Amino acid sequence: MNLLTWDKKSFIIDGKRGFLRSGEFHYFRVPKKDWKRRLDLFKKAGGNCVATYVPWCLHEPEEGKFLFGDCDERDVETFFKLCKDAGLYVQCRPGPYVYSELYCHGLPRWLCENYQEILARNAKGEIFQYQSISYLHPRFLAKVANWYDKVVPIINKYSVDNGGPIALAQVDNELMGIHEWFGSLDYNRASMGIGVRNGRYPEFLKKRYGRIGFLNKAYSAKFADFHKVMPLPEISQKTVEDRRRVKDYQDFYFQSCAEYLAILSIMLRKRGVKLPITHNSGNPSMNSYFHETIGYTGSKEFILGSDHYYNLSQDWDQNNPTPKYAGKCFYSNEMLRLYGFPPTIFELPGGSQAAWPPSLPEDMNCAYMLNVAFGMKGFNYYVYTGGPDNPQNISYKNNYDYNAFVSGDGKIRPTFKMMEGFHKFLIRNRWLAEAELVSDFQIGLDWEQTRSHHYFSSRGDFLFGNNEAWQFLQKGITMTALNNSYTPGFSDLYSDAILREKSKPLFVPTSACMAEHVQERLVKFVKSGGRLIIAPVIPYLDENFNPCTVLSKFLGGARSEAGTSPKVIAPAFKIGQTLMRDKYFVFTAVPRNAEIIARAQDKEAVVGFKNKVGKGTVVALGYQWHHSYDEHSNVFRHLLELAGAGRTVVTCDNPNIWAVVRSDGKRSMLFVMNLFASPQKANVLVRGKAGKIRIAKSFRLAPMAVETVMI
Amino acid sequence: MNLLTWDKKSFIIDGKRGFLRSGEFHYFRVPKKDWKRRLDLFKKAGGNCVATYVPWCLHEPEEGKFLFGDCDERDVETFFKLCKDAGLYVQCRPGPYVYSELYCHGLPRWLCENYQEILARNAKGEIFQYQSISYLHPRFLAKVANWYDKVVPIINKYSVDNGGPIALAQVDNELMGIHEWFGSLDYNRASMGIGVRNGRYPEFLKKRYGRIGFLNKAYSAKFADFHKVMPLPEISQKTVEDRRRVKDYQDFYFQSCAEYLAILSIMLRKRGVKLPITHNSGNPSMNSYFHETIGYTGSKEFILGSDHYYNLSQDWDQNNPTPKYAGKCFYSNEMLRLYGFPPTIFELPGGSQAAWPPSLPEDMNCAYMLNVAFGMKGFNYYVYTGGPDNPQNISYKNNYDYNAFVSGDGKIRPTFKMMEGFHKFLIRNRWLAEAELVSDFQIGLDWEQTRSHHYFSSRGDFLFGNNEAWQFLQKGITMTALNNSYTPGFSDLYSDAILREKSKPLFVPTSACMAEHVQERLVKFVKSGGRLIIAPVIPYLDENFNPCTVLSKFLGGARSEAGTSPKVIAPAFKIGQTLMRDKYFVFTAVPRNAEIIARAQDKEAVVGFKNKVGKGTVVALGYQWHHSYDEHSNVFRHLLELAGAGRTVVTCDNPNIWAVVRSDGKRSMLFVMNLFASPQKANVLVRGKAGKIRIAKSFRLAPMAVETVMI
Repeated sequence: MNLLTWDKKSFIIDGKRGFLRSGEFHYFRVPKKDWKRRLDLFKKAGGNCVATYVPWCLHEPEEGKFLFGDCDERDVETFFKLCKDAGLYVQCRPGPYVYSELYCHGLPRWLCENYQEILARNAKGEIFQYQSISYLHPRFLAKVANWYDKVVPIINKYSVDNGGPIALAQVDNELMGIHEWFGSLDYNRASMGIGVRNGRYPEFLKKRYGRIGFLNKAYSAKFADFHKVMPLPEISQKTVEDRRRVKDYQDFYFQSCAEYLAILSIMLRKRGVKLPITHNSGNPSMNSYFHETIGYTGSKEFILGSDHYYNLSQDWDQNNPTPKYAGKCFYSNEMLRLYGFPPTIFELPGGSQAAWPPSLPEDMNCAYMLNVAFGMKGFNYYVYTGGPDNPQNISYKNNYDYNAFVSGDGKIRPTFKMMEGFHKFLIRNRWLAEAELVSDFQIGLDWEQTRSHHYFSSRGDFLFGNNEAWQFLQKGITMTALNNSYTPGFSDLYSDAILREKSKPLFVPTSACMAEHVQERLVKFVKSGGRLIIAPVIPYLDENFNPCTVLSKFLGGARSEAGTSPKVIAPAFKIGQTLMRDKYFVFTAVPRNAEIIARAQDKEAVVGFKNKVGKGTVVALGYQWHHSYDEHSNVFRHLLELAGAGRTVVTCDNPNIWAVVRSDGKRSMLFVMNLFASPQKANVLVRGKAGKIRIAKSFRLAPMAVETVMI
Repeated sequence: MNLLTWDKKSFIIDGKRGFLRSGEFHYFRVPKKDWKRRLDLFKKAGGNCVATYVPWCLHEPEEGKFLFGDCDERDVETFFKLCKDAGLYVQCRPGPYVYSELYCHGLPRWLCENYQEILARNAKGEIFQYQSISYLHPRFLAKVANWYDKVVPIINKYSVDNGGPIALAQVDNELMGIHEWFGSLDYNRASMGIGVRNGRYPEFLKKRYGRIGFLNKAYSAKFADFHKVMPLPEISQKTVEDRRRVKDYQDFYFQSCAEYLAILSIMLRKRGVKLPITHNSGNPSMNSYFHETIGYTGSKEFILGSDHYYNLSQDWDQNNPTPKYAGKCFYSNEMLRLYGFPPTIFELPGGSQAAWPPSLPEDMNCAYMLNVAFGMKGFNYYVYTGGPDNPQNISYKNNYDYNAFVSGDGKIRPTFKMMEGFHKFLIRNRWLAEAELVSDFQIGLDWEQTRSHHYFSSRGDFLFGNNEAWQFLQKGITMTALNNSYTPGFSDLYSDAILREKSKPLFVPTSACMAEHVQERLVKFVKSGGRLIIAPVIPYLDENFNPCTVLSKFLGGARSEAGTSPKVIAPAFKIGQTLMRDKYFVFTAVPRNAEIIARAQDKEAVVGFKNKVGKGTVVALGYQWHHSYDEHSNVFRHLLELAGAGRTVVTCDNPNIWAVVRSDGKRSMLFVMNLFASPQKANVLVRGKAGKIRIAKSFRLAPMAVETVMI
C-alpha cells in the first residue's frame, strides 16, 4: 500500500487529498548532529516530506569502493530513520546525475576521467564538457547498474512498503540539461548508433521513412543506406531538407532520452523498487522534451515535475518573480496537467545558489503564491536547508548555504517564517489541492511548437515558424488575456479531449506547420460545434514539412501570404495600422459566405474572416503580436467576442494586476496578483454562473504581492 | 552669449550651476491647441528645457517639397515661440535620423525607396534593412544638406543668440544603432571605399600599416595592395589574424561614424549655427563607440550624452530599475565624465513605448534618483508628453501616448506628481549639480575592453579576452565593491590623469591584451608611488594582438597561465576552492622579493603576489569572478586591504543595500538604495576625513527606494 500517491487532480497523502510540501535536505551537507533538529523544524513548520540526493560520487569515491555509513556524511540510513521519526516522507534521488553544484554534476570523477568514450559529443564529434555523459552508452549504463546494485537495497530497506519513510524514487536529474546547457544535443556515435548498420539512429530513420529513397527525397540527399546518414548540427539548417534532418535528429534524441529514463526505471524495478518514480524537468521550456518519455512511462507509476527558479545569479533576467516568470509557471503547470499529473515543482526556490542577488521573503512568497494560483499541487523547496561542509571534497563550494530557510550553519532566516505562513495557508485551504482554474477560453497547445527552437532558430522560407507561434502563445495570447481579465486554460491539441471541451472558444496560435492529426481534430472540433480562433496563418505543411492542407481545404482553400501593405486591420479591431514589430498576413481565399472582419487597407486583401459551420465557428486573423499596446487588447477582445466568449468570470480595472479564480466546484478562491515592484490598486469583480456578482472588492497591493479572497 | 552651457563639473544655466531638466515634447504629435498648456505645466513642474525632433520625413514629404507651417503639425515656429513664452530652453533635434517610432526611423520614405545605393550593407554585401543608411554615402549627405538648408535657418531664427529659446542642437540620433541593432556594422562599398584604390578603407589600413607587407603579416594574407583587402564579417574570426582584421574594420567603422558626425556638425556651422552641438549614445554600452568622435569634437562645443532605459517592452530583461541597471548607469555616467562632460542622459525614461509592462511612479523615481546618486547632471525625459495623432501617416502608431507624464490626450498621470517632486529635490539641492562621488578606490577603464564584443565574441586562443575583462569589471569588481560599501570611481587608463590620482588604489581588470601606452602608464603609476591591483592575468599582447610585455617585464617576467588544479587561493582570502564559473590563473614567474599571497593548492603554483616598488605597490591575483558569493567579498576586501585602501567612507550592514556619498567639498549627501522588489532594512554609517563618525542611521527602505540624508 502506498501512502503517498496521486491522480490527475492532486496528491493523496495518507489517504487524504492535499499538497505535497517537501523540502530538499542534503544529509551529506548538514552536520549529522543537527539532522534531527532541522527535520523536526520542517515538520513543525508544516512540511510533510523531504527530498535528498544520494550522490554517486560521494558513495563510490573510487571505482568499486562503495561506502555507506563509514562517516557522518555518508550515514544515509540514520538520516532515513530520523525522517521516519520526524513523520516526514522522503523523495530519494540517487542519480546517476544529481547536479547540485557538485564536481562532475555528482558523477564520480573517476568515471568521467577514466572512461572518456562515454562522454557526450556535439555534431562535429567533439567533447564539449568532460562531465557530460552520453546517457545510453553501454559502459555508462553498466557502471550505473553497479551503483544501483549498492544503493537500491538501502532505498528498499527504508521505503514505505517496508515501513520506512521513502515514498518516491527519482531517476537522474534535469534530464538533457547536461547536454543542452553546456554544448548541444548528444551525438556520441557509439551510444546513438550513428554510422553503424542496425545502429539506433539508422533504425529510427528506417522506422520513420521505411525506404532509403523516401529519406533521400526528404533530405534531398543520395545516401546509399540508412547507416550512411550523418546528422547535421543544429545551426547548419538552411533548407527545408536540412531542417527536416535536424528535426529528425532531435526527435531521435528525445526518444533516446526516453529510453534512458525507461532503462533507469526498469533497473530500479528489477532491484525491487515498488515506489512511484519521479523526475524533474530542468525548467518550464524543457517540459515538452518529455513527450516521448511520458509515452513510455504513463502517469500512474511515474510523475514528471518541473523546476521553477526566478533567479540564481546576476546573469538571470530578473531578481524577482515577474509576469514573465508567472507566464512560464502557468504554461509549465498546464503542460504537467495535460500530461496527466498534478502539477509538481520538484525544485521551487527555497533560496539561491548565489548569495547575491538576495533571496528575499516577499519575492519568494509571491513566487509560491502565483504558482498556487496557476495550478501547482505539490513542490519541493530547493533547498530547505544548506550545510557548512564540503564533504569529501565533492563540491565547488565549502559552504553550501544556498540562502536557505535554515542556513548552512543552522540559523533560521526571515524566510523561514514566510514559509511557515505559506504552509499554514495551504493546510487551511487543503481543498485548493483539488481546485481547478476557472477559465474563460482555451489556448490550444501544439507540443511541436513548444520544442522547436533547435530547428526553428530562423524562420527561413517559412511564412511563420513554430518557434514564432510558441512566442505568440506566450507573449501575445497569454499576456494579453491575463491583462484583460480573460483567464485561459490550456488544451492538448494532440488529444481528442478537445472535442469534449466545446463550451469555450479555443484559440490556436498557428505556424506554417501543423500535424495532419491536429488539423483533422480541429476540423472535427468545429464541425461538432466548437468555436475556433486561429492566428496568424493557415498551416500548409505537416509537422515534417510535407504539404498538408486539411485545414485550408476546410476553410475554402484559404491560404496565407505575408502582408505587404503598410496599413491593415479593420476599424472593428480599433487598430488602424501595423504596430512596431507586429506581423500580418493576408488570406488568398476565404470560405464561401465567410464574413470579412479585417482587410489590408491599401489593397483590400482579406486579413481576417469569420465562418460559421453548422453550430461551429472559425475566426481567422492574419495578425500576431507580443503584448505591448492597448491596441493588442482591442484585437484580442474583439476576437474573443467574435467567437462568442461572453462575459469573463473576473473583471479587473487595472491591466497590470492579474486576477484568477480557482474552484473545486463547492468553494472558490480569488487570487489577485501584483507582480511589479511598485504598489498598485485594483478594483476586482467576480461573477457567478448566472452572471450574478459574487464579489466586488478594492485591493491595495504591495509590490510582489498575491492576495486571496474566498468567494 | 550662450545662456545654456557647461563645463566638466555641471551645466551652467543663466549663469548659475544647476541640473538640466528637460522633457521631450513632439510638437508634431501634440495637438497645437494644447501646446501652451502642456509647456506651462512642465515649466511649473520645475522643467527648464524641452527637446524635440524635427522629423525630416514630416517636413519633406516628397523630394524637394519642403513644408513648414502649412498645418498645425508642421508649425514648428509657433512651437518655438511658445517655448520662449513659457521660459523653457529648447534642444532641437533635426536628424537626419530621429528614430522615434517613425517609419524609416524618421527619414523620408522616398529617400529609402528611391536611392537604394545609399543603404547600409553587411559584410556579405547584403542590405539588412531598407531603412538603414550608409552614413557617409555622398548621395545621402547631399540630401541631408538639402534638408539642413531648409531647417537650419529656422533653428537659427529661434536660437538663443537671436533671442530665441533654442540652446542646443542635436545631430542625428543614437548613432550606429541603425546598424548594430538591425544587422551589423556597415560595409557599403561605395561609402566605405572598400575595394577602391585610395578608398577610405584602404587609406585607413595604409595609415595603420604603412606597407602592404606589414598588413599581410598581420593578417597572414597575400594581398597585392591595400585596396584588395576585404573586411571579414564579425562572426568569422577564428584566428588571431582574423580577429585583427575584424577589429581593424571596427576601428575604421567607428572612425567613419566620427567623420559623419563631424560632417553634420560642420554642415550646421556652415549654415550659421553657433549653438553647442549634442548627441545621444543609444545606451551605456555604446558610449565607448564615440571615442574617435570625441577626438574630433572635443568637449567644449559638443556634448555626448547617453540613453538610460530600463524597460521598453516585455522582451527587456526586467520591469524595473535593478542593480544591473544601476551598474550600467554608473559606468555610463563615469564614461561621460571621463570624456570631459557633465553626465547627461538625453533619454531618461519618462514612460515607455509599450503600455505594458507599465511605467510605475515608484520604479521611475528610483531610476532617476539612482542616476543622480551615480553622477547624472542633466537629463531629458523621453517623453514628457505624447500625442494622440499620427500626423501625415509618418508613424507606426496612431496614438503615441508613451505612458508619459501627460498622456497623449492631455491627461495628467500619477507619474507627473512624482516628476514634480524629483525636480523639487534637484532645485532644493542645486549644489548637487557640482557634487562629486566620494570614492574609496579607482577602477581602471580600458576603453578597448568596453567595445570588444564584436571581435571578442569568443575567447579563442587568448588566455582571457577583452570582453571577459569588461564583464569582470561590471559583474565582479563593481558589484562586489558596492555590496561591500566600497565606492569605486572610474579612471581613464588612456589619460595621464591617473598619475595624479595616487591617493587611492587603482584596480585594473586585465585581459591578454593591453595597449603599450597603457602598460607604460601603469608602470609609471606604480613607480611614482601608486598602488595598483591587477586581476586576473598579466597582459602579453598589445591592443592589436602583437607581443607587448612592458608590464610583465616590470613584474619580474611574470606571465599568466590557466590554472589546472581544482583547488586554489590562499586561506587569507577565506576561500578554499574555485567556485562555480570562476576562473583562475597561475603566474609562471614573480618579481624578486614579491610576497606570495595565494597559491594553487595541488601544485604550489603562485596565484597571487604583492610587490613593493619604492612607495608603490602592485597586487596581482590570478582570479576573476562575477559577484555571487560571500567568498567573492572576502577576496575583494583582502585585495583592497593589501593595497592599503583603509577604511571605507560608508559602512552598510546590509550587502543588498548600496550607499554612496556625493559631496561638493562643503556639503555632502548620503544616498541609500534598495534596488530590489522587497522592503529592506540597513544600518548605515558615514565617516569623515579623520575617520570620525559623521552619521549613523537606520533605514527601512521600501522596494525600489532611494533615500537621501544630508551629512
